[in-house]
Amino acid sequence: MQNLGVIVTQATAADAVDAANNALFTTNNLWILIAAALVFVMHLGFSTLEAGFVRKKNVVNILFKNAMIISIGLLTYWAVGFNLMYPGVNEGGFFGFAGFGLNPGADGQTSAYGDYTYFSDFIFQAMFAATCATIVSGAVAERIKLSSFLIFAAIFVALSYPITGMWKWGYGWLDARGFYDFAGSTIVHSVGGWAALAGIILLGPRTGKYTSKGIRPITGHSMPLAAVGVFLLWFGWFGFNGGSVLNADANLVSLVFVTTSMAAAAGAVGAFFSNYILTKTHDLSMVLNGILGGLVGITASADSVSVNESVIIGLIAGIIIPISVTAFDRMKLDDPVGATSVHLVCGIWGTLAVAIFGDFDDAGTGQFADQIIGILAIGAFTFIVAFALFFVLKVTIGIRVDAEEEEKGLDIMEHGMRSYS
Amino acid sequence: MQNLGVIVTQATAADAVDAANNALFTTNNLWILIAAALVFVMHLGFSTLEAGFVRKKNVVNILFKNAMIISIGLLTYWAVGFNLMYPGVNEGGFFGFAGFGLNPGADGQTSAYGDYTYFSDFIFQAMFAATCATIVSGAVAERIKLSSFLIFAAIFVALSYPITGMWKWGYGWLDARGFYDFAGSTIVHSVGGWAALAGIILLGPRTGKYTSKGIRPITGHSMPLAAVGVFLLWFGWFGFNGGSVLNADANLVSLVFVTTSMAAAAGAVGAFFSNYILTKTHDLSMVLNGILGGLVGITASADSVSVNESVIIGLIAGIIIPISVTAFDRMKLDDPVGATSVHLVCGIWGTLAVAIFGDFDDAGTGQFADQIIGILAIGAFTFIVAFALFFVLKVTIGIRVDAEEEEKGLDIMEHGMRSYS
Amino acid sequence: MQNLGVIVTQATAADAVDAANNALFTTNNLWILIAAALVFVMHLGFSTLEAGFVRKKNVVNILFKNAMIISIGLLTYWAVGFNLMYPGVNEGGFFGFAGFGLNPGADGQTSAYGDYTYFSDFIFQAMFAATCATIVSGAVAERIKLSSFLIFAAIFVALSYPITGMWKWGYGWLDARGFYDFAGSTIVHSVGGWAALAGIILLGPRTGKYTSKGIRPITGHSMPLAAVGVFLLWFGWFGFNGGSVLNADANLVSLVFVTTSMAAAAGAVGAFFSNYILTKTHDLSMVLNGILGGLVGITASADSVSVNESVIIGLIAGIIIPISVTAFDRMKLDDPVGATSVHLVCGIWGTLAVAIFGDFDDAGTGQFADQIIGILAIGAFTFIVAFALFFVLKVTIGIRVDAEEEEKGLDIMEHGMRSYS
Repeated sequence: MQNLGVIVTQATAADAVDAANNALFTTNNLWILIAAALVFVMHLGFSTLEAGFVRKKNVVNILFKNAMIISIGLLTYWAVGFNLMYPGVNEGGFFGFAGFGLNPGADGQTSAYGDYTYFSDFIFQAMFAATCATIVSGAVAERIKLSSFLIFAAIFVALSYPITGMWKWGYGWLDARGFYDFAGSTIVHSVGGWAALAGIILLGPRTGKYTSKGIRPITGHSMPLAAVGVFLLWFGWFGFNGGSVLNADANLVSLVFVTTSMAAAAGAVGAFFSNYILTKTHDLSMVLNGILGGLVGITASADSVSVNESVIIGLIAGIIIPISVTAFDRMKLDDPVGATSVHLVCGIWGTLAVAIFGDFDDAGTGQFADQIIGILAIGAFTFIVAFALFFVLKVTIGIRVDAEEEEKGLDIMEHGMRSYS
Repeated sequence: MQNLGVIVTQATAADAVDAANNALFTTNNLWILIAAALVFVMHLGFSTLEAGFVRKKNVVNILFKNAMIISIGLLTYWAVGFNLMYPGVNEGGFFGFAGFGLNPGADGQTSAYGDYTYFSDFIFQAMFAATCATIVSGAVAERIKLSSFLIFAAIFVALSYPITGMWKWGYGWLDARGFYDFAGSTIVHSVGGWAALAGIILLGPRTGKYTSKGIRPITGHSMPLAAVGVFLLWFGWFGFNGGSVLNADANLVSLVFVTTSMAAAAGAVGAFFSNYILTKTHDLSMVLNGILGGLVGITASADSVSVNESVIIGLIAGIIIPISVTAFDRMKLDDPVGATSVHLVCGIWGTLAVAIFGDFDDAGTGQFADQIIGILAIGAFTFIVAFALFFVLKVTIGIRVDAEEEEKGLDIMEHGMRSYS
Repeated sequence: MQNLGVIVTQATAADAVDAANNALFTTNNLWILIAAALVFVMHLGFSTLEAGFVRKKNVVNILFKNAMIISIGLLTYWAVGFNLMYPGVNEGGFFGFAGFGLNPGADGQTSAYGDYTYFSDFIFQAMFAATCATIVSGAVAERIKLSSFLIFAAIFVALSYPITGMWKWGYGWLDARGFYDFAGSTIVHSVGGWAALAGIILLGPRTGKYTSKGIRPITGHSMPLAAVGVFLLWFGWFGFNGGSVLNADANLVSLVFVTTSMAAAAGAVGAFFSNYILTKTHDLSMVLNGILGGLVGITASADSVSVNESVIIGLIAGIIIPISVTAFDRMKLDDPVGATSVHLVCGIWGTLAVAIFGDFDDAGTGQFADQIIGILAIGAFTFIVAFALFFVLKVTIGIRVDAEEEEKGLDIMEHGMRSYS
């Protein structure tokens, strides 16, 4: 009877451990799902930000593109992207593919990784994937053909983003080297930025932007829309960075919320002063992009720097923004929303900041040399693929709308409707 | 001493199981609350969607109605609706009522259902309830009298929605038959759609919409507002469908997030092509309504279809949208926001899709015949009640503003203010 | 061997308890973080609300201020505010300071309070802190100098808000007396309202508001922006009040969600009727402010009143709004957004409602006398500090833009850009 008592007790204690583990698993998984929903909000944020920064005649077009990007992005990631990014084989490699569609495995849905289900993993990653195409959409706005852009976006999200993503997050060769990019300063943001740069170069500037008399600013049609976009992006970034912890670990997710917010705040202040020194004005778009620069900058290291360091990272990102925007304009690279400054330049800065400030248990992680190799390798691959894609489209169906359409606006000419009436 | 040891151990193990159960209960309950907050966001989404799709002169009116609907909806659901929908008695019945107000029971608040509290149950359901009236508000916009609409909405949310809702979710006669509607393709969306149809018929079209020269499109005043609304509705739908699991079960909630998103994405693509084939244009409003159609379509089956099937369901819903919008216009049923196409037609499609694709342990669940009986029974009851309500209002205080008010706009005439200045 | 068995079992049961506690801690902490993200959304809500209620020529300015307020607020709270508000010493005192920056302690991050980490505590409180300055920003809109406002906001958030906050939430002298303010009807909202009142008095009304012929209404430029703001504030309030439970306790957080929502709904209805009786119109801005009044009103007691009582509290708050707005206008205190009526007047009402309706285990909590002492002490301190700050700024760098700038608008004169183009 004593023996029986002991056996019963042991079974109950083991049951209790199982129950506790199940409770924790449920919480971890729920956080990944909520984080996925927050990353979804970023697509709304990008939509309103970009809509606000373009002229009234191109607003329907940018909204149409953004509604299609998230939709096409989810579908292509479901079809091929997820299995290109997480092939689950050839660790340390350059390429892998686990087959078409979703394969939740024998047990139905539970992930092999332990803290969330297969489907949570998919939806969180899928929401990320379309982000890189959205970044491009702002930079090439007001002059790109709708059809060409959608074809580009579909291929880029389906193939290019997952392959370079696999190099780090799919346990590929950059991961093996010790390259570190927590939530994607390089893997998501710079990737979008490089593709944007390729598009800008091949498209050329908007008519009238760079004249013989100098740079003519083309102002956005709605600052409220742009500001709403930045606040929503900050809100979504709690999921983007916070969810990248890949569980609800109290210490780590809390730290990430703080570093992410402090970098955003410092980015605003950095851009405020940097822009004032450069131009003696209080340009709202610079402060808004300063916030985004701070967010992009902290993304690679949000889990591995101190709060004080996050302030420095964000501050520098904010300071960079007005300088970078001016520099791109001097190079006559016309980016209506500043996407290259925010996502490419601050993405590079954030990836380097890992080497400067990052604190890792493993001394082989986040070394300067490896960070630079990661930036260059992913940058080169992405820029070449995006350039090639845009180039093929340019010489076949064309990528730029004609002069009349640019003048009259894409809303009327591509969509037959006005943004406001 | 050994005995004592065993007894102490047993107590500790039982305590541990209790502690684990409490942790899981806390997570489950928190998810229902967060889901309720997300469903609340849908009311903002409907507000901006409808505001964007009406003319500038009627924007204050639609915002006023939406602010009042959620408020009146919560109050009437608190007063009578909740206890009509979940009477907790006469299973398999047509009608029940558990008394006025909230009755959290002897233990204070804990629900009898196990996974959440009584108050969580109430607030989640209450956020749902007002949705059906919001659907009506868009369809009858730009010509209905404010007072008549508010009276209609109060009675409809207080009495009609909960009674038909009880038939399934309150363990009524449709539930007993095996009718299946996971999160409300019929119970919420079609119910709103049927009431909208009744209102449209009794009100007649907006002046100038259907002329002797054909249909004159009346375009919405702000596409950004409409687009923001659709993104916010998608965001809120994570709570609408995800919360309808009624706990935070990792496998099920994850699946629902994926099927919901994939159907929305496929809805956009379906509407994109369907509309292009029909009209050779890229109409933003069609793609936006395609997303909503996909979301409504998957709502009845989000927990019981595969991801591949969710893509098919969403794609078909999206394809339906432009066809349905055109069909309603040919019938001279004037719906400014397309609510009948999105919520009624795609709601029916989603409810039928359960019978086609649904995978249930119990072979008696979701059969074709029962789905059709559910659609018809709830549709007939709702349409008749809504028609009767609008009819009584029409012959008493009137439901349509006079010609001068319609011409000058409801903002000035009913509210004495302009939407923009 | 039996002994060994017992020991092993005991260890396992203890492990199970630890695991269950860890699961619950993870959920509790996650809720504080999500609540912090929701309070962040309130800053977007305030931004669009205030932007909607000002004229087109001052929209960039108000957005700029709001983007800077949250950023400066987070940075000053990190630098000094958090340690002024939670000094962790001298319980029952008037003032304390735990040093500059964040001090997560020896264990890294875990809070001494038990249910969340140090960093979660910080970010949740930091999101609150900037709220009080945002309230001021709306009231002083359209005429205050950007530089003066930012200096005021930085000092006010860094020093004044945390000191009065400490009196209650930092276990100071008001807490020792039994003053009760659950989530800050007084500590956050009235504090913002008193500072707004000081600013309004020293600034004077906008040119042309109070003329010899009476009060000339100056209407906001975008009702959709204002309405979006109110819905987002309601959404964020789920975190503001729900997170103030300071864990995810199922019973308490559920109750708070319900009381918060019911008070908001009742506030809309109260303002609807109150305004109709006063003016015979259906003014959207009154209903929107009625919702906010209900939310502010329930904030002090959301965890300690019944649902029926929450409806009464919200209803009275809503009824107050049109009366208060009219009264301030009669006193020629010009508040473009109604912030003093919403946050100061309804904040006081909510704090008194604690004494009327509050249900506490400890009879010494929330007594009328102590509520009034709290209102007066915090009000007097805040008003004097804010008045002194604005006064010093007024006699040094000036606080009001010149007549030409007010006429042409702050957007062009302070920012060199237009809100719409």
